[in-house]
Amino acid sequence: VVFNGLAKWVEVPSSADATPAIQIEQVLSQMDQTLRRIGSDRTQVIQVIIYLSDLSDVQALNRQWDVWFPQGHAPVRACVQANLQSGYKIEVVVEAVANINGE
Amino acid sequence: VVFNGLAKWVEVPSSADATPAIQIEQVLSQMDQTLRRIGSDRTQVIQVIIYLSDLSDVQALNRQWDVWFPQGHAPVRACVQANLQSGYKIEVVVEAVANINGE
Amino acid sequence: VVFNGLAKWVEVPSSADATPAIQIEQVLSQMDQTLRRIGSDRTQVIQVIIYLSDLSDVQALNRQWDVWFPQGHAPVRACVQANLQSGYKIEVVVEAVANINGE
Repeated sequence: VVFNGLAKWVEVPSSADATPAIQIEQVLSQMDQTLRRIGSDRTQVIQVIIYLSDLSDVQALNRQWDVWFPQGHAPVRACVQANLQSGYKIEVVVEAVANINGE
Repeated sequence: VVFNGLAKWVEVPSSADATPAIQIEQVLSQMDQTLRRIGSDRTQVIQVIIYLSDLSDVQALNRQWDVWFPQGHAPVRACVQANLQSGYKIEVVVEAVANINGE
Repeated sequence: VVFNGLAKWVEVPSSADATPAIQIEQVLSQMDQTLRRIGSDRTQVIQVIIYLSDLSDVQALNRQWDVWFPQGHAPVRACVQANLQSGYKIEVVVEAVANINGE
């Protein structure tokens, strides 16, 4: 949803039976698609709340996270452990600047 | 609270000792009251973050959720397991378009 | 980050090995610093999502919370249990009115 120029959405991995690293990769890749769709990009992500079903996946997350965001554009981030539906290893709530209206 | 036309609030069930299905019903019914109070309605809910103390209540949640929101107006939703205070089975963080100011 | 006059950020305690009460105190004290930096104050906090690694710390939280916010200015608050990184006892996601732009 886009409201007042800000888009909010939730990503879950497309393959709930993949390894944590692949699920994280899927979520980031889906974020790219959504960002493109709303006329935005990785530098315009404002906040990400990350739920991991296993906190020990945070290293795998950080390895991808640190290269995914352009230097100086890491968003506000919270990262906590929570049991997730459907075997998901990660679920994220994202907010980014949108350059379209409606949606 | 309403800011820039967007209302944000948290609902917890009024009866923390009721069954999960009734607690979910209470939360949805309270959402209706709050939406009315801010000049909004079910079609203008933007995002709901749902914390369930027991993930197996997600079926009961979905049964009510799917009929509560008018077709085509389901908001962005994240749903994770988290232990909750006071015996709550559900706690939700809601964002909706408000058609009043202040509050 | 500040967007449309609203600041969003995450606080974790500076001393992850301190007692819960001290970690809560650190988070509130850091909130003060951030509020000052964005030209805001305790009366302009809109929403706080609180993750506690141990729900029994909610009493210690409430004792500080109730005196920290000026009467009549408690923000919308959700408080759930979630395991946290690095030994943190508390992690909070904060939204407040900002009186600067950019950041």
